[in-house]
Amino acid sequence: QGTRDHHPAHVVLRDRLLATVIACFKRHGAAPLDTPVLELRETLVGKYGEGAKLIYELQDQGGELLALRYDLTVPFARYLATNKLSTMKRYQVAKVYRRDNPATTRGRHREFYQCDFDIAGQFDPMIPDAECLKVMHEILSDLQLGDFIIKVNHRLVLNGVFDACGIPESKFISMCSTVDKLDKVSVGMAPVWGWVAGVGQGGVSRSCSTRCSQAHRMSSLGSLLQGSVTLTVKKFLLMLREGLGDMKLLFEYLTLFGITGKIRFDLSLARGLDYYTGVIYEAVLLQQEGQAGEEPLGVGSVAGGGRYDGLVGMFDPKGRRVPCVGVSIGIERIFSILERRLKASGEKIRTTETQVLVATPHRHLLAARLQLISELWGAGIKAEMLYRKDPKLLKQLQYCEDTGIPLAAIVGEQELADGVVKLRDVSTRQEVRM
Amino acid sequence: QGTRDHHPAHVVLRDRLLATVIACFKRHGAAPLDTPVLELRETLVGKYGEGAKLIYELQDQGGELLALRYDLTVPFARYLATNKLSTMKRYQVAKVYRRDNPATTRGRHREFYQCDFDIAGQFDPMIPDAECLKVMHEILSDLQLGDFIIKVNHRLVLNGVFDACGIPESKFISMCSTVDKLDKVSVGMAPVWGWVAGVGQGGVSRSCSTRCSQAHRMSSLGSLLQGSVTLTVKKFLLMLREGLGDMKLLFEYLTLFGITGKIRFDLSLARGLDYYTGVIYEAVLLQQEGQAGEEPLGVGSVAGGGRYDGLVGMFDPKGRRVPCVGVSIGIERIFSILERRLKASGEKIRTTETQVLVATPHRHLLAARLQLISELWGAGIKAEMLYRKDPKLLKQLQYCEDTGIPLAAIVGEQELADGVVKLRDVSTRQEVRM
Repeated sequence: QGTRDHHPAHVVLRDRLLATVIACFKRHGAAPLDTPVLELRETLVGKYGEGAKLIYELQDQGGELLALRYDLTVPFARYLATNKLSTMKRYQVAKVYRRDNPATTRGRHREFYQCDFDIAGQFDPMIPDAECLKVMHEILSDLQLGDFIIKVNHRLVLNGVFDACGIPESKFISMCSTVDKLDKVSVGMAPVWGWVAGVGQGGVSRSCSTRCSQAHRMSSLGSLLQGSVTLTVKKFLLMLREGLGDMKLLFEYLTLFGITGKIRFDLSLARGLDYYTGVIYEAVLLQQEGQAGEEPLGVGSVAGGGRYDGLVGMFDPKGRRVPCVGVSIGIERIFSILERRLKASGEKIRTTETQVLVATPHRHLLAARLQLISELWGAGIKAEMLYRKDPKLLKQLQYCEDTGIPLAAIVGEQELADGVVKLRDVSTRQEVRM
Repeated sequence: QGTRDHHPAHVVLRDRLLATVIACFKRHGAAPLDTPVLELRETLVGKYGEGAKLIYELQDQGGELLALRYDLTVPFARYLATNKLSTMKRYQVAKVYRRDNPATTRGRHREFYQCDFDIAGQFDPMIPDAECLKVMHEILSDLQLGDFIIKVNHRLVLNGVFDACGIPESKFISMCSTVDKLDKVSVGMAPVWGWVAGVGQGGVSRSCSTRCSQAHRMSSLGSLLQGSVTLTVKKFLLMLREGLGDMKLLFEYLTLFGITGKIRFDLSLARGLDYYTGVIYEAVLLQQEGQAGEEPLGVGSVAGGGRYDGLVGMFDPKGRRVPCVGVSIGIERIFSILERRLKASGEKIRTTETQVLVATPHRHLLAARLQLISELWGAGIKAEMLYRKDPKLLKQLQYCEDTGIPLAAIVGEQELADGVVKLRDVSTRQEVRM
């Protein structure tokens, strides 16, 4: 359930898409990494918030307790710690596994590709973070998916907001996961903060609604910077200021990259994963023009990421910190969009790259076909023949038309005697002897 | 246990290897297929002989009973049956999972790549089978792995031999698996058949040793063809003749392909999997020249395959037959060999493709670097910069040397004022303003 076979036309289209993504990762100097699909369960525990219950676990068969990877970020952090690496810029394109409620028409599956780009290392603030947003922006532009925006927020800013709402520090992380799950598009932001404040108070009360309006006021950046709201714990005010300082610097760099037009500071963005510690972001496609007679395709997050400075330390026996920031492209939703678009255009995708069919016009020429095709393969030419001893010429030419093979190399008795082949252009029917 | 991280240099080398394999598959007109890593357990049951106990099973988490794929052949057959396809030529390159005893120095792992090429469909005898052997031959030649041979046998021939040895028909399949496991290289063939005959008799006895010598005589193809040995059941004599007829035709086609030089009819080849029904084959690398001071690398099977005409029918509710034949390249052992060879040669593999480093010669020029690199990325140029506000020029040039970046684009105050960059060839230290 929730998995699927990818038939050849699908794979061809997907590989085109992945090629665009990988080209961008390489353009930014990332090296490829490949980790096993199996991880120790203990590696995955405590990293995904509410996502933890969606992890696929393997049977204990007298060995270790194993699980299928849930994302590519945790394995990357585990790799850095295991190999004691303190800097690395890597990409990884691979399938991950989540026992989620599948919604296949929206492109949500239990087995799906992620395309991750991450920068690990202690560097000057916000330079790698800005590059991750640039990578996201380039990929979404290169794929020509229509208009999109990238929402950006900061975990330290959120922590300040939660604190102002009366949420105890121990609940910050689970609150991120909760805010992430809310349908912010349909309800708007004000009730979200009201709700957050309500949770903080253990119920809706007068003081809650006060906090709610206070929280709502907080969503204006100015008042936050001026410190006009009261934070219960000084620490969080400092963290809030640090977060906002990061954001200011980030936007400076994004301005130099010329991409601020599509980037929004959005206080309601929380991201569901436990491990983020700094800047977080998520790309959302804006509503596509609906096809006549089709349901409008659900829009949603197609890429996301953020800074996770504490994750590598969780795998290091000495707790050694390796700051990291990364971005993950969710290829499946993007694929659903491209597939619909292709279907609407009526374009037919070739699933093979065969250049020439080796054909014979009459019986008893199998040996000639086998020898000629062997010669063509030897010369690096993509060639096929029908697996029949004596196929009819018409059937062979029909095969070319059905599968898009542009040329047929025909050898009959006459051609054999003359030491030539007749090369036929399948679409124009022109023939040359050569 | 038995899995591993593939670090960047490994991935780069492996991708080169896979590119060679995939190029051959495409040259032969195969279309790509991708199936999930998860299969229903019932799909995998009864297909792998003794291998069954090596299947990774997932926990029942309130859904279906799942397992990780053990090979790519069974999922392909399941795909054909599910989609009611009667012909298809597909390739698939993906990881498979076996809880085998890992022997990592010999390139045996629990998670490893297989590269499969298969032809499904009802065709004239031995034409697709010959192409599979041609594909195997081309790939092993293209990879320049040194000398190799491809052993070929036929399940119907083996059945005849088993019958002549007194093995009951119900044990033919498990006997194949048993013969496959024997260390035939060190013990030679005669004891193998003796042992087989012993099993058939339930112990070593006089009549067993008679059968043993009879079986040994049978390993000469001539006596088999002339029917000079007595088969207990007529059916198996007919099957034996059919098998030998197939082999004769196969060798005719292989002669036309010009590849018989590396192909051996080997009666001791059995293959461990249950599903083969016709021709079977296995490629073995011959002993490599040992490096001084290194253990000689274990040689072994690097590719194998065969005909499996009954497998698709096992997944079809109506038992509809789709004859199939295929070949699987085991990339991990080949990789171990290439990796050792590379190590011996001292060649260093670049793990990134970065063309130019954007550098600055003095402080306060981060903005200039960010703008220039953004322009380069926009032009499709693979570019990096150090994630520091004010890195020293020497450090930037050192980074180029460490990572093999050939060019540095340097912008200082003077270059900014003149609207140029200084392009430096890292190895020759030549510079041009442009």
